[in-house]
Amino acid sequence: MKLASRRQGRDGALLVVSRDGSRVASASHIAPHLQAALDDWANVEPELRRRFEALENGLLPGQPIASVELSAPLPRAYEWIDGSAFINHVLLVRRARGASPPPTLATDPLVYQGAAGHLLGPKDDFSIGDESFGLDFEAEVCAVLGDTPRGTAVSEAPKYLRLLMLANDWTYRNLVPAELGKGFGFFVSKPATAFSPFAVTPDELGSAFAAGRVHLPLQTRLNGVLVGEPNAGPEMHFSFYDLVAHITQTRALTAGTLLGSGTISNTDPACGASCLAELRAREMIATGRAETPFLKVGDHVEMRMQDERGTNVFGTISERIAP
Amino acid sequence: MKLASRRQGRDGALLVVSRDGSRVASASHIAPHLQAALDDWANVEPELRRRFEALENGLLPGQPIASVELSAPLPRAYEWIDGSAFINHVLLVRRARGASPPPTLATDPLVYQGAAGHLLGPKDDFSIGDESFGLDFEAEVCAVLGDTPRGTAVSEAPKYLRLLMLANDWTYRNLVPAELGKGFGFFVSKPATAFSPFAVTPDELGSAFAAGRVHLPLQTRLNGVLVGEPNAGPEMHFSFYDLVAHITQTRALTAGTLLGSGTISNTDPACGASCLAELRAREMIATGRAETPFLKVGDHVEMRMQDERGTNVFGTISERIAP
Repeated sequence: MKLASRRQGRDGALLVVSRDGSRVASASHIAPHLQAALDDWANVEPELRRRFEALENGLLPGQPIASVELSAPLPRAYEWIDGSAFINHVLLVRRARGASPPPTLATDPLVYQGAAGHLLGPKDDFSIGDESFGLDFEAEVCAVLGDTPRGTAVSEAPKYLRLLMLANDWTYRNLVPAELGKGFGFFVSKPATAFSPFAVTPDELGSAFAAGRVHLPLQTRLNGVLVGEPNAGPEMHFSFYDLVAHITQTRALTAGTLLGSGTISNTDPACGASCLAELRAREMIATGRAETPFLKVGDHVEMRMQDERGTNVFGTISERIAP
Repeated sequence: MKLASRRQGRDGALLVVSRDGSRVASASHIAPHLQAALDDWANVEPELRRRFEALENGLLPGQPIASVELSAPLPRAYEWIDGSAFINHVLLVRRARGASPPPTLATDPLVYQGAAGHLLGPKDDFSIGDESFGLDFEAEVCAVLGDTPRGTAVSEAPKYLRLLMLANDWTYRNLVPAELGKGFGFFVSKPATAFSPFAVTPDELGSAFAAGRVHLPLQTRLNGVLVGEPNAGPEMHFSFYDLVAHITQTRALTAGTLLGSGTISNTDPACGASCLAELRAREMIATGRAETPFLKVGDHVEMRMQDERGTNVFGTISERIAP
């Protein structure tokens, strides 16, 4: 099942989306918005699936997706918890900024608590503010969780994973070192995060979703040029289930909590990168100098993930950098 | 005006509270819950004030506060952003754990993004989990913000401050050093935060609310014994307005965002402390050894703030440590 949100009010209006992403139908009579659906998932999910199947089977005409303006599936959420589960990314980026990776890198997941109050839609311009802040994108997979109890074991985690999306975790790279140096983590260096148009149930990925990982390449393009297509599966050191166990150690999570994978990164340089910082890190390591510039006004960033049948699973994040 | 939330569903049911804290009346016909009121504050506030005045003037009988079970004013919120605006606290605690304060301590506010999905009510037991984690309380003042634009100046900040509350920012002290050492800030060391029963408009504090600071002592008791009553005003180095300007540098905040002052702390040791870590830090500095233990099952923590007329402004946070 694929879901999306028409831009309306603070929480959007719930839609079901055809598997090929071409048509949508309102589902707001079942639950007004995605947060309400997640709040009552056990009751709402079967009805949403029936509506999705009706659209998919042509029993419901729906309307062309181009006729509706989409927000993020959750335009505001209660938590955005972002992991950094691709160890290659941590090693490259920290090496380039002269910081050491934590000694527990492979045993204790890195996560940070991010901003969830304003989330950007798949086609929302990003207002850069100050180009000297060094704006970068980060392509990620994101899980949407249901109510998840404190002390959830890895083996229990699968039943709390409701939906999957893509995320673009905008980052002001030049603000990171000073901010992390203060010791309390990211804040001003992490502006609002953007999300893919569709949130899909894990079964939409078939065998590509396995062991809490999405085994598909995520393509990122900058101004139409492919920057990378690393696979989000094999090198995700901590699975979404591992991350759930980590983040529930001392507290429960509420329905609609967003959990990011961190920047998707593969050790093979031929896979490219999901952020500019990695390209710069590889340049720095190779030549002592980072040549790739950070983003500037007018740049265009695009992210998508295709399955083996060529379906654009989550729809496309397509955003322009505005002043 | 004083507001509270009766425990009901995920968001509670909105109440107005008499100034003396003895009586409540339902306000859920005006807005079902506090988040809904904050989402439409300009329209809702005048009606809520009329209902509050009717209760206060005896035109509305209300019901005894003891007859309703209160949750946190916002049982779930979109953001919990906690500052550390009392420099004395930072200096003491970091000195005791052998960490240096950041060189920008007095010019660049310290804030962290905390968990907002599950917030504890004023009388909710706190389940300690593992006593070896070193559970501590932290007494704070907390502002509730309206929709606050990116790039808000200090001078513009006052108009976005809607309500004030008290917060108890539970902290697992023994988990902090390793977690901050990883570089991404607090996560498992900061479980769910607890809030006072009442959220009040700043005018309830009269002249005690000045320049974005609450000029009243906050009393904390452990097992009935006064631990501290530092004043929350004069030594709050960054005011709530300074903090708003800091946290909106690169993004907007949604209505209902919670902004904490950080642990209230005064340089005069006679004022005591608002957390055990400060008592332990002073012992460590004086004798080389921290004697005060962290919390254990059965301990009871109480926080309240009285104004000059003896009114318990926010009601009392009163929580027992459970297994």
